[in-house]
Formats: sequence, structure tokens, C-alpha cells
Amino acid sequence: MKILRAPQSVAAWSERLRKEGLTIGFVPTMGALHDGHRSLIRAARLRCDALVVSIFVNPTQFGPTEDLTKYPRPITHDRALCRAEGVDVCFEPTPDAMYPEGCQTIVTVPEIAHRWEGKTRPHHFAGVATVVTKLFGIVRPHVALFGQKDYQQAALIKRLVADLNLGVTIDVRPTIREKDGLAMSSRNRYLSPDDRRAATILYQSFQAGRQAIEAGAKSVSTVECIMAKMVAQESTAHIEYLALCDPASLEPLTQVKGRILLLGAIRIGSVRLIDNMLITR
Amino acid sequence: MKILRAPQSVAAWSERLRKEGLTIGFVPTMGALHDGHRSLIRAARLRCDALVVSIFVNPTQFGPTEDLTKYPRPITHDRALCRAEGVDVCFEPTPDAMYPEGCQTIVTVPEIAHRWEGKTRPHHFAGVATVVTKLFGIVRPHVALFGQKDYQQAALIKRLVADLNLGVTIDVRPTIREKDGLAMSSRNRYLSPDDRRAATILYQSFQAGRQAIEAGAKSVSTVECIMAKMVAQESTAHIEYLALCDPASLEPLTQVKGRILLLGAIRIGSVRLIDNMLITR
Repeated sequence: MKILRAPQSVAAWSERLRKEGLTIGFVPTMGALHDGHRSLIRAARLRCDALVVSIFVNPTQFGPTEDLTKYPRPITHDRALCRAEGVDVCFEPTPDAMYPEGCQTIVTVPEIAHRWEGKTRPHHFAGVATVVTKLFGIVRPHVALFGQKDYQQAALIKRLVADLNLGVTIDVRPTIREKDGLAMSSRNRYLSPDDRRAATILYQSFQAGRQAIEAGAKSVSTVECIMAKMVAQESTAHIEYLALCDPASLEPLTQVKGRILLLGAIRIGSVRLIDNMLITR
Repeated sequence: MKILRAPQSVAAWSERLRKEGLTIGFVPTMGALHDGHRSLIRAARLRCDALVVSIFVNPTQFGPTEDLTKYPRPITHDRALCRAEGVDVCFEPTPDAMYPEGCQTIVTVPEIAHRWEGKTRPHHFAGVATVVTKLFGIVRPHVALFGQKDYQQAALIKRLVADLNLGVTIDVRPTIREKDGLAMSSRNRYLSPDDRRAATILYQSFQAGRQAIEAGAKSVSTVECIMAKMVAQESTAHIEYLALCDPASLEPLTQVKGRILLLGAIRIGSVRLIDNMLITR
């Protein structure tokens, strides 16, 4: 496995492979790799000739009060996982290489970004959209893989790629969960043992929501109420949002029909958890 | 010469050529081609294996009161010029193909865009930055050529390509002028004969500015005043801005030293004219 830091080196590598007619798969990450990332890497390994994983804790998608400096960076572990999964290039740019002095261009996807995560984290999605555009420019992958856990992010990236004609296929893969249903996340390690036990309540609320829908619940507010009541059973859990929305536009639904996305964010102590469940009947 | 309308057809053509190791040159235009465009096309023809010219009057870079509907569209003439200059692909997308329903992503380059043309035309540069990113995504050129006449636009595109790692070399070519110095522009055809004669005053003001600088003028305001006085000699000319600025950042200069960009916009009747002169001593 090559470990490359310079964007130009990755771009040159990619160009060479593309000329040979090889397909390039790409899994962009912020490191602290877990089994969710591993499943993306394995899926990419199966469908592409060559495989790039980027490890870059992107400063522009963190808010001023967020966990940028304490975000976990277990680089030795991450490289070992990449090596074991047959990654060809581990791209580890520095913040200065990604954002040299004078750098100012911003990519925004306003309609998808303004709700949910975008409301709580105002500049988050501009940071995501910009860095993903840059990474795609450098790596020039045929396919890029993202986890469904960050549903709004994946929707935003699909939109961005179509809108800017970036020519990358976006493959969104199912969320990988712990045995008790908690969606895998690099931030789960922040949870105390008690909070870790409580954290599964978000997934349980989606299951309750799904059951209510399958049992024929008529109104959106009924289902949302059922989900909120489930979360309320954990006294340490605080709801940021819990909603039924359109899986394409992410707009809130007014009727319980068609494809439904259950979308939620809760806080347990100082740890924010997000998750979602897609219901296709 | 191929005339292609579908972005996917151009992308597929480009991909095929890149795999063969050929270099692709690109001249994006809004049509109404004149000798300025012709010089870009010829320069591209000389330095690249294959050559794409796009003809697209981009709606998103026009303001609500601007000349979108009456912008000239002499497509037969434009195609003939492209054919005569050895263009391989004339890319003529429709607005619907470029901006299908749901399209929302916006690219901005805030520091370069906020002054001069950006002040008079608030959403202009977001429209330019977004469409150029899209066109580069579709055409995937090795080199794209722009005229120095639209200096701020060229500076913005250079910045954008570096910031988003688009991997396109930007070649800015000298302004082509009429015999009396008027910079060629598709909008010159709007000028009445009297206004056409008066229009050369903008170029004359730059020459007066240059002479003052070369004669050792000490202050920025002295030089700007000399340029303004020259324009004032034409009673029909109205100054929008006339300034000495830094050729890289486009910020106004406070001292007459180093490389200097004379930048200006005037109105003659309802026609807006822009031009610039780079002074390197």
C-alpha cells in the first residue's frame, strides 16, 4: 500500500491508472476507521480495479465549538486496517496542502443543506461539499462510497456530483450496526459505559416508528410522537430532531405514504449521535 | 466538426481521447464569436491535440435586468468560425441540460468576486464559477483558454481551479483590440456609430494612466484622476469604476509600485464596457 500525502502525487497516480483503462474506487474518511468504513472499503475492493482511501480530518466541516482538536486520529490502526483490506493508496493530505493560503472557493448545496444537520451545524455542509469536490478533483474516482448513516451527507454529495457534472458514481451502502443496533461511528468511543448502553435508544425509536407505520399509523405527528416517547425513556437522551422526511429532497413529510426516511439526531451527555432508517413498502 | 448537445456525449468523447493520451484544449464561450475568441481558438489549436469550443449563453450569470434574452446568438456564423479554425467539437448544451430540475449547487470565490464587476453584478460571478466548474467536469480539458479582457473572470477561474483541484491549466491570452484600441466584445455590436467612436475612450484612459505611471506619478489617486479626466472628455461616457489594483488579489493598490493592473468599466448609453491593462515594469 502506498501512503501518499501530496495531492499532486495522488492525481498523477490516478491519471496513470485511468489511461490504462482501470477503474478507481474511493472511500473518503476522517480516519478512526471502524467496521462501517471496512464495509465500504470491501465493497469498493470488489467493484473496482484500484482503491483509494483518504484519511483527512477536514477542519472546515467542524464548527468553532466542535470536536476538531480532540477528534480521534489512530493513524497506525487506520493504516493497518487499510492494508489488511487491500487498499492501494492511503491518501493522507495535510490541512495546509488542502487549504493553502489564499484558498477561498466554497461549494454549497443550499436546498439539501439547510435542514436537520445543517440547522444545528451551520457551515458543516459547505465544508463537506467543498472538501468532497476537492477530493474528487484529486482522486478522480469512477466510484465513491459513502455510508447511509450520514444520510443527509450522502444525499448532498449525490446532488453535488450531478449538479457539477463530476462524473463520479456515488454508491451509498447500508449502515453497519453494533449487535444492539447502535450505528457504528467514530464518535461512539466518546460514550461512557452508561451512555453507550443508553445510545441504542435512537435505533429503537426508529424501530418503533417503523412498526407504527407498518401497523397503519395515519399521521406523521403520531409516528414522530411514538419515536419521541421511545427516546424519552432514556433520561440522559436529548432529542435534537426526529422526523419523517422525503428520502430524495429531505423535506419533512406531511403524509405517511410512499418511501419514508426516518431521520434523527440525539445528544447523550456531550455526544451527538445521528442515525436514520429508510422505509420502502 | 462534431456538434454535440448532450453533456454525456462530450464527457464520453473526452474520456475516450484522454485514454489515448491525447491532450484536450477548451475554449468556453457564450457564442457571438469575434476575433478575440478566434485568437483563443488558434492558441488552443496549436498547443493541444483536440479542441472543444462550448457555445452556451449561461442564464445564471445574467442579472434580472440584464441582456440575457437579447444577447446575440448567431449560431451559423459561430459554427462556421469554429469549423474554419479546426475545432473538433462544438458543444452546444441547452439550458435544461445544464440546469435540470432540482439542480442547486453553487460555487463561489468570495474574495475575488466581491469587488468591481461583482459589486455591479451581484450574482454574476457565482454564475460564472458554477458554470465553469460544470463545463470543466463535462469536457475534462487539460488546458482552458480565456481572454484577458475579462480579467477578473480569468483571475476567479484560476483561483477556482487551484482551490477545487480541478487539474486544468488556465491560459489567459492578451486582449484582441480593434484598430482604435477598443477591446473586442460581443456587446460592441450594441453600440450606435457615435457611441462606437466614443467607446475607445476607455482604452485611451488606460494609456494615459500608463504614461503617468511611467513618467513617475507618485500617488494612486493622481493616476486614477488622470484616467477619469480622459473618460470625462466623452460626454456620453459614464464611469462605473477606474482603479489601480493588485493583479493577483484584485484589491485596490495604495501605492504606485510593483505590477499594476488598470481596471475599468464604463457605460456609454445602455452599453457597459469593461477593459484592463497590465503594467509590468
